[in-house]
Amino acid sequence: MDLNEIIIGYGKLAREASHKLATTLTKEKNRALLLMSKKLKENKEIIKKENEKDIENGKKDNLSDAMLDRLLLNDNRIEDMANGIEKIASLIDPVGEIITGWNTENGLNIKKIKVPIGVIGMIYESRPNVTADAAALALKSGNSIILRGGKEAIHSNKIIASLLKDALKETTIPEDAINLIQTTEREAVKIMTRLEEYIDVIIPRGGSGLIKAVTEHATVPVIFHDKGLCHVYVDCDADLKMANDICMNAKTQRPGVCNAMETLLINGKIADKFLPIIAENLKKDGVELRVCSRCKEILPNEKDATELDWETEYLDLILSIKIVDNIDSAVEHINKYGSKHSEAIISNNYENTTKFLNSVDASTVYVNASTRFTDGGEFGFGAEIGISTNKLHARGPFALNELTTYKYIVLGNGQIR
Amino acid sequence: MDLNEIIIGYGKLAREASHKLATTLTKEKNRALLLMSKKLKENKEIIKKENEKDIENGKKDNLSDAMLDRLLLNDNRIEDMANGIEKIASLIDPVGEIITGWNTENGLNIKKIKVPIGVIGMIYESRPNVTADAAALALKSGNSIILRGGKEAIHSNKIIASLLKDALKETTIPEDAINLIQTTEREAVKIMTRLEEYIDVIIPRGGSGLIKAVTEHATVPVIFHDKGLCHVYVDCDADLKMANDICMNAKTQRPGVCNAMETLLINGKIADKFLPIIAENLKKDGVELRVCSRCKEILPNEKDATELDWETEYLDLILSIKIVDNIDSAVEHINKYGSKHSEAIISNNYENTTKFLNSVDASTVYVNASTRFTDGGEFGFGAEIGISTNKLHARGPFALNELTTYKYIVLGNGQIR
Repeated sequence: MDLNEIIIGYGKLAREASHKLATTLTKEKNRALLLMSKKLKENKEIIKKENEKDIENGKKDNLSDAMLDRLLLNDNRIEDMANGIEKIASLIDPVGEIITGWNTENGLNIKKIKVPIGVIGMIYESRPNVTADAAALALKSGNSIILRGGKEAIHSNKIIASLLKDALKETTIPEDAINLIQTTEREAVKIMTRLEEYIDVIIPRGGSGLIKAVTEHATVPVIFHDKGLCHVYVDCDADLKMANDICMNAKTQRPGVCNAMETLLINGKIADKFLPIIAENLKKDGVELRVCSRCKEILPNEKDATELDWETEYLDLILSIKIVDNIDSAVEHINKYGSKHSEAIISNNYENTTKFLNSVDASTVYVNASTRFTDGGEFGFGAEIGISTNKLHARGPFALNELTTYKYIVLGNGQIR
Repeated sequence: MDLNEIIIGYGKLAREASHKLATTLTKEKNRALLLMSKKLKENKEIIKKENEKDIENGKKDNLSDAMLDRLLLNDNRIEDMANGIEKIASLIDPVGEIITGWNTENGLNIKKIKVPIGVIGMIYESRPNVTADAAALALKSGNSIILRGGKEAIHSNKIIASLLKDALKETTIPEDAINLIQTTEREAVKIMTRLEEYIDVIIPRGGSGLIKAVTEHATVPVIFHDKGLCHVYVDCDADLKMANDICMNAKTQRPGVCNAMETLLINGKIADKFLPIIAENLKKDGVELRVCSRCKEILPNEKDATELDWETEYLDLILSIKIVDNIDSAVEHINKYGSKHSEAIISNNYENTTKFLNSVDASTVYVNASTRFTDGGEFGFGAEIGISTNKLHARGPFALNELTTYKYIVLGNGQIR
């Protein structure tokens, strides 16, 4: 059987299972999730043994220590992964929720309700816990899933997927609701992304190389996370103590994540007062600064920011800083260079905060809070499959709700046109 | 300037205009729409003159009479087109609507609100009225639009777009909110579908050739209408008079549209009684029947249905008919062959109707009503840009609401993580 037929085979099984899953009771889905968690907890030794193979191969392939750490599964991490599934069992099932409803003039009763999407294709790299997270989120929202993990985690992914499928055997849910592509051939990704008949959405989770490989040839809709080039704009009417705390948090609390600040914009009227303080605090925490020519007058020793800096998501302890004349210049800069992820204004001015909220084009816009809150957990969604920088279907934190679509239910009593 | 640069040029202008449009007052957008309508009504002669060129070229190119009729603009049709714009002015503006909102434990106030998508790329064939319809819907929902009409209607499209842009000159809305690609080169479509930076969604409206050309290479998300292979299932507990009326309506009232019935499923228990009657009525109205082997016992003179018939959207006075044992077989057939568009059950049985509504995977599922109601106008949406057979973002009737996305607005008072 060639690779194409193998992947189509998964697609057929997943599609069939999805029809069954779509009407499975929440109670049964939750029971399955708890069994899935139990299986992982009971099989820590075997999971660690398989994981060791990946670690050894990773060492042979000279993976970085950071990469090896992301691959590693130990008792604690397996426990966390299993607890994550239990958490998902405790969340509200979105399926069946009535979004809206009305009666038409001729007496049709129309309801728009949430239903599972069908079959999710998940393509991801390194961290093997994604196998469990994604399978659990898909199952809770009534979807089948086809998982395609990275080569480097293949042994870990295989044992995890196999344990999750074992758990389903003790339920009424077909085990084909969860599928892991067993081969690591790159071609499998391309085939998946063109399988419209059997896969309803592709979710890539990984670096820009993966995103590009997926979007390049996909005919299946793709929801992805591109980059997070987030700004904080400190307005002339800002509480400068608050501005300092928020900027420090947005830049340094976890610089490697997508909702961290990459560029700081400061209103010219308060730059003399604010810039020296925040610059000192940032540098104290090891942040390298890249500043505009106007900043340079205040901070003559800092490195110049180039055009490239305004376009760069550092994901590191580096920050570009620019002085702007007013709210309009701030909004203009953000709409030009921002990645439409998370943007914040620090201000007590009604007009400026309102203008910022209305005019900035981003998934999440903040007044007087850190950009770091753009997160399914922080938003109260319980768990997330990622953060979407797309505008269609899912924008921002991408959780259970976004794993559903809707259908219209129309009740009549003989209406014709 | 090469074609690529030309299209990118449109993209940049449209993107810039979209930022302005996003915060334009509803009042001003409505004023613009009424001016657009007025321009069309005042310039009927010039529109007809340009349209004549398309008609002449169409005749030279041996377009069918049906195609030529679709191309034709006369006084009435121009009046209708203009009135359509006025209708859109009267609809509720979706922008700014709060979808949901809540406070988090740490006091952040989060609101999820509807915002324009940004820049719409519309790729369509023949009917020049789409130029006006699509531009008006995009503008009302705060979006810029880049229009790419068919070669056969280029003169009509150019004059319509130019008049609409003229109307915008009398408003505060930048005229770059509406753009028509002036060239008819095919390559332009491919360039548009890969312009993620400047186009947020591509909406193709046309035959399957166009859909395929668009989805094949697109990196921009695409929302399209594929096919409408709709079923009516007449259950054992159906009111047979109602079933007859609905089937006749779903098949014959307008057989060439996507929400017409293509396959009739009949429960075996009532087939003896129902099939002869409905077959006679259908044939009286000129419908050709293609029947399953069980139907054949009742209707020995009808043509055999083949596997291909169950997969075919006839869009014509042809109907395939199958007898099924029960609701489960009906659902199975529909989920296998249906195009997830519109599906109806005719029944007075609570268990069967419930099962049908829950188990059939389609944008719209009906009890005791004709599939012909899947339509933005019939749903009360006022106007529609099309019907989506996609599952993500827009499913079913695709109107003003679906031309918006959302953003999260987060109000804090100094929150950090």
